[in-house]
Amino acid sequence: MTRAYAASAPAARLAPIDVPRRALGPRDVELAIDWCGVCHSDLHQVRDEWGGAVFPMVPGHEIVGRVTRAGAAVKGFREGDLAGVGCLVDSCRTCEPCRHDLQQFCATGPAWTYNSTEMDRKTPTYGGYSKAIVVDEAFALRIAPGQDLSRVAPLLCAGITTWSPLRHWKVGKGSRVGVVGLGGLGHMAVKLAAALGAEVTLLSHSASKEADARRLGAHEFVATSAPGAFRRVAGRFDLLLDTVSAEHDLNRYLGAVKVDGAMVLVGVPPQPAPLNAFSLIGGRKTLAGSLIGGIAETQEMLDFCAERKIAADVEVIPVQAIDAAYDRMVKGDVRYRFVIDLATL
Amino acid sequence: MTRAYAASAPAARLAPIDVPRRALGPRDVELAIDWCGVCHSDLHQVRDEWGGAVFPMVPGHEIVGRVTRAGAAVKGFREGDLAGVGCLVDSCRTCEPCRHDLQQFCATGPAWTYNSTEMDRKTPTYGGYSKAIVVDEAFALRIAPGQDLSRVAPLLCAGITTWSPLRHWKVGKGSRVGVVGLGGLGHMAVKLAAALGAEVTLLSHSASKEADARRLGAHEFVATSAPGAFRRVAGRFDLLLDTVSAEHDLNRYLGAVKVDGAMVLVGVPPQPAPLNAFSLIGGRKTLAGSLIGGIAETQEMLDFCAERKIAADVEVIPVQAIDAAYDRMVKGDVRYRFVIDLATL
Repeated sequence: MTRAYAASAPAARLAPIDVPRRALGPRDVELAIDWCGVCHSDLHQVRDEWGGAVFPMVPGHEIVGRVTRAGAAVKGFREGDLAGVGCLVDSCRTCEPCRHDLQQFCATGPAWTYNSTEMDRKTPTYGGYSKAIVVDEAFALRIAPGQDLSRVAPLLCAGITTWSPLRHWKVGKGSRVGVVGLGGLGHMAVKLAAALGAEVTLLSHSASKEADARRLGAHEFVATSAPGAFRRVAGRFDLLLDTVSAEHDLNRYLGAVKVDGAMVLVGVPPQPAPLNAFSLIGGRKTLAGSLIGGIAETQEMLDFCAERKIAADVEVIPVQAIDAAYDRMVKGDVRYRFVIDLATL
Repeated sequence: MTRAYAASAPAARLAPIDVPRRALGPRDVELAIDWCGVCHSDLHQVRDEWGGAVFPMVPGHEIVGRVTRAGAAVKGFREGDLAGVGCLVDSCRTCEPCRHDLQQFCATGPAWTYNSTEMDRKTPTYGGYSKAIVVDEAFALRIAPGQDLSRVAPLLCAGITTWSPLRHWKVGKGSRVGVVGLGGLGHMAVKLAAALGAEVTLLSHSASKEADARRLGAHEFVATSAPGAFRRVAGRFDLLLDTVSAEHDLNRYLGAVKVDGAMVLVGVPPQPAPLNAFSLIGGRKTLAGSLIGGIAETQEMLDFCAERKIAADVEVIPVQAIDAAYDRMVKGDVRYRFVIDLATL
């Protein structure tokens, strides 16, 4: 059994619990978890806002720790290595998306790190608000030493969620990228897009975010609540990365996309949004969605960040502060990611 | 002055009129119009359903005729040549979209064939329900001889509108293409996608369309009103070309798109449609729009159709029957395009 922090029901506060971790298989690594980032989706799932939640639930999919044991057939890790686990702990590995390193779109459904099951569809998975995890090495990520690991943890979800669309839509030098919203995802999107050489504009409802946006690497800032804001950026962006999960008018933002440009949703608003066909047709524009990233792509992002000294801006909390942290996240009161110090568990 | 057929007001029946055509410039060709297809957008504009309509309005942008005069500097046409005119008669020719042969997305707005103005923003344009037109040769299309020209006319809009997305989204041998709706656009989409080597499925609300869909080249047919229809095609299509301009649930259709696939709108429903972000995020899917095509791409499509003996299925009408034809179009009672024989004017 492994010490963890869990919600026992949708309305419950999180509390200590012991959960089983499987016996180490030949291809498994066991990690002692040092840090776990707190993702907005932890909150949605703990509160069962997406439906189908399984309790007790140990959230957490931005996991960084050290390898304490490695199975006999493990090739990529040794005891003492740093390692990470993101949103995925397994997939079928044979379907078309899996063969193309898109495990997040596994045709049979992947094994998510928590609030899910292993591929046997029976054994529950438990996340990173815990002291240890056992995972197939194919789903463990290498973490380069010499980094502030509390700041690396959020890369496992917030980092890859923004990296994947930036790469898929080929952002590079000369690209004009707009980032909508400056939260956990938005702040990583700004850093990563700027590091890839793009000209980055942060679009935020709140004018108060300008100084921070520029500090993080944005070259321009647009307060979308200002009169004429959307006129000023009409037809501007090759890629508009929309990280907002609150209700907003997609059509206005599509107006800021260039001919043949794309707007990509990585946030999920609670209600369907009205979409006007003309918003797309009037410039062969695409509206797309993107979901985290595959394992190889996650490794690519971690290596890029290590080399370029990019990490999340975080506020470290003890595990006992998690409920208060959720309440502050709902209000947007975090710059820009809570990370749990598992030494406190 | 040129004899034409025009609406004088949104509620008016169409009637004969004389409209001015400009004096032949050095780069202009003058066409005697033989055939003009009747597009659904003629009806929308004549009835001012999109707003901003200018009267008197001579509709028609699926024009085929013969060159009667060519300006001194014209290089591509000679008197007696067959020629066509589609939805565009000019554009700025210098903006980024124009430089990339996307005149339909001209940054300053192109000169549409009717219900628009020349690039001087003053001189009204009049369409193909008329005996003749004068157009810059850069916006005239070459038509190969030996074809049934009444059936070629609809290619100038219905053909290019479906060809352009098939090409842009790289449809070819092995592609799985779904076509939603079997009207003027849908019937061309089926023919063109099949000719490009795709495996084509026609999705229609009405089961009665199956025989026609197969005759036109569809390999499969899905009656979307049948129970379980969308389950059967879940995750099926690389490209889903949506030609429907009536209200329908985009999310259900997006479920039929593959991971990394695209659904492309070429019809414009009257109301914005509710879009669920999960419909896109759950497979990195794209929802896009496409609008006719550029001039070079239109020529490519005409050449392809001439070579492959592809043309529209049409019902030829005298110009005097246009109001009755509009009424039948509203009911979907045409297989699949009305074409006006201008000899009747």
